[in-house]
Amino acid sequence: MPAEHESRRLRMAGALATADLDSALVTDLVNVRYLTGFTGSSAVLAVKHDGSAEIATDSRYALQVREECADVPAHITRGGLRFLAERMVAAGGDAAGFEDLSLPVASWRGLPAGLDWRPLGPMVTHLRMTKDASELDLLRAACGASDAALGVVLPRLRPGVTEREVARWLDDALRDRSEGPGFVTIVAAGINGAIPHHQPTDRPLVDGDLVTMDFGARVGGYHADMTRTVAIGRAADWQCEIYEVVQAAQSKGVAALAPGLAASEIDAVSRAVIAEAGYGEYFGHGLGHGVGLQIHEAPFLGATSADKLSASVPVTVEPGVYLPEQGGVRIEDTVVVHADHVECLTTTTRDLLVVS
Amino acid sequence: MPAEHESRRLRMAGALATADLDSALVTDLVNVRYLTGFTGSSAVLAVKHDGSAEIATDSRYALQVREECADVPAHITRGGLRFLAERMVAAGGDAAGFEDLSLPVASWRGLPAGLDWRPLGPMVTHLRMTKDASELDLLRAACGASDAALGVVLPRLRPGVTEREVARWLDDALRDRSEGPGFVTIVAAGINGAIPHHQPTDRPLVDGDLVTMDFGARVGGYHADMTRTVAIGRAADWQCEIYEVVQAAQSKGVAALAPGLAASEIDAVSRAVIAEAGYGEYFGHGLGHGVGLQIHEAPFLGATSADKLSASVPVTVEPGVYLPEQGGVRIEDTVVVHADHVECLTTTTRDLLVVS
Repeated sequence: MPAEHESRRLRMAGALATADLDSALVTDLVNVRYLTGFTGSSAVLAVKHDGSAEIATDSRYALQVREECADVPAHITRGGLRFLAERMVAAGGDAAGFEDLSLPVASWRGLPAGLDWRPLGPMVTHLRMTKDASELDLLRAACGASDAALGVVLPRLRPGVTEREVARWLDDALRDRSEGPGFVTIVAAGINGAIPHHQPTDRPLVDGDLVTMDFGARVGGYHADMTRTVAIGRAADWQCEIYEVVQAAQSKGVAALAPGLAASEIDAVSRAVIAEAGYGEYFGHGLGHGVGLQIHEAPFLGATSADKLSASVPVTVEPGVYLPEQGGVRIEDTVVVHADHVECLTTTTRDLLVVS
Repeated sequence: MPAEHESRRLRMAGALATADLDSALVTDLVNVRYLTGFTGSSAVLAVKHDGSAEIATDSRYALQVREECADVPAHITRGGLRFLAERMVAAGGDAAGFEDLSLPVASWRGLPAGLDWRPLGPMVTHLRMTKDASELDLLRAACGASDAALGVVLPRLRPGVTEREVARWLDDALRDRSEGPGFVTIVAAGINGAIPHHQPTDRPLVDGDLVTMDFGARVGGYHADMTRTVAIGRAADWQCEIYEVVQAAQSKGVAALAPGLAASEIDAVSRAVIAEAGYGEYFGHGLGHGVGLQIHEAPFLGATSADKLSASVPVTVEPGVYLPEQGGVRIEDTVVVHADHVECLTTTTRDLLVVS
């Protein structure tokens, strides 16, 4: 994928020109991976105004860095930040950027004099919002693997199996089809479903439970994110009611997605469905978030978000209703906003499944 | 474990007094967990000079924070850093610490005026080096699970199985016995063994391979770390030779551990064995590292380390010889330095195992 990475660096060069910067140090490892393909756990990248770049990593990754980003000159050294910063100073220029949202204060204080070091803010994470074709293909593969994993696990759900067992089955099925779970799988049964980020326990599923499963595969570093809630044995009236509300909120949210809209508007559309049904106070989190090399990334779909949607941006849409001491429902898909339509990457039915 | 966490905060209060600080903001989540027991992915902790503390996290963790650290007053808010910092300013005092090794520049710039904000450096990670009894018990459990996992996998090794399959077996066996793998399992066969951090591929094991497996369980957040290298079918003379050299270097390194010694001395003792055998240039990494809530933490055992050993400090001892285009050997144990002896927490034989 050198062509993709090079074109990403050229986009960054454009952003540097707009910010009147001669070059920038990229220290967030996710951003380094995005711009080069390098996946090691230690690296610093210098990107110049013409899109050329140099990377520094340590000796553990001497071979890997040549394999993963053969088109970027690599320096094998400890103290890569200082090393590249000094090369930038030696190259001349007035101002250079650094990633103030992640660079620790102590590292920043070690930057050499000779350049005006200015905060980049979220420059690279903003570039990452819009996905190229190769990224969308990886997201499709990750979502396909996630749907398939759920397909393996659904027939095995029955009273008596524990949250932990269900999570393990999902994780195993994800590992068989991908790099594995991209985040810690949530399985929340019965009253545990009232906790949005509940971690699986040894609680067995029992008749009358709603069971929420939130999970996703990672493929080529890209994350799928999906949630389904199923009923065990039978669904009580209150369960059917909140399920239908969440299902309506979710489909309205997906349908509302379009380039140019504010992320907060989408949140409002979906949230209104839940509020009108009288459950507004039980939906305490944002509607969704971007996905890519990180499981949570820009844009954020929430009431206070300043993000805007555009084409080729994948997001999750995941409303929920959480009734304390009773249980909860969440339904989540990973979808891509296109110029003229919305593509659902996760496709398992959103109708209430009752298993026994 | 509130008693342990409270006594850790009292140790921190002592360190704050020594540094002439009235209070400090702890933002590194591993350090927050160490001082409170809170395991969520979003939190800030304020520790005062008397060892009292307050924690801030977001609404996702409202229930969890009460369960995990009932003895620490909790604030549910977004922007917990600013929130707690302002409370510290309101409480008065002259100087307060912040974790400059991890706090991003942008967050630091948002700290309110009214206190002299001073860098803490590695204050909390230094406190974490010496483990208390409950931490050592968790490390023992993690190491026991790791030995047991290897015991399940060793009999299944044979020509034809792939690196990836071996890694999956190890990971499954770790999951059956613990919270799961504490880091990405390394399985490196044949010439891949020349790459210290090789990631498992579909390469099958073949007769004549050395196979290096580096893995470890996590229990209660604490990490085991162990490596064994086995031979498939038979071991050639050169393989036996480097194995014996590494084995001798490893046992000499373990035997040399004692409180009061410089970490660099231990590295030198073990490294000398490899250098004297003529393989010095093929051992490119440090001898080992501390383990605990992080898989790599202080003290670091390497030539340039300024760290010192003391009692109740667990470290890895993991020399290796890596011959490019041929293969490699690494043998690693997690051990604890005590006042008068060294305790090996990983106990699988270090003699060369030949499987077929």
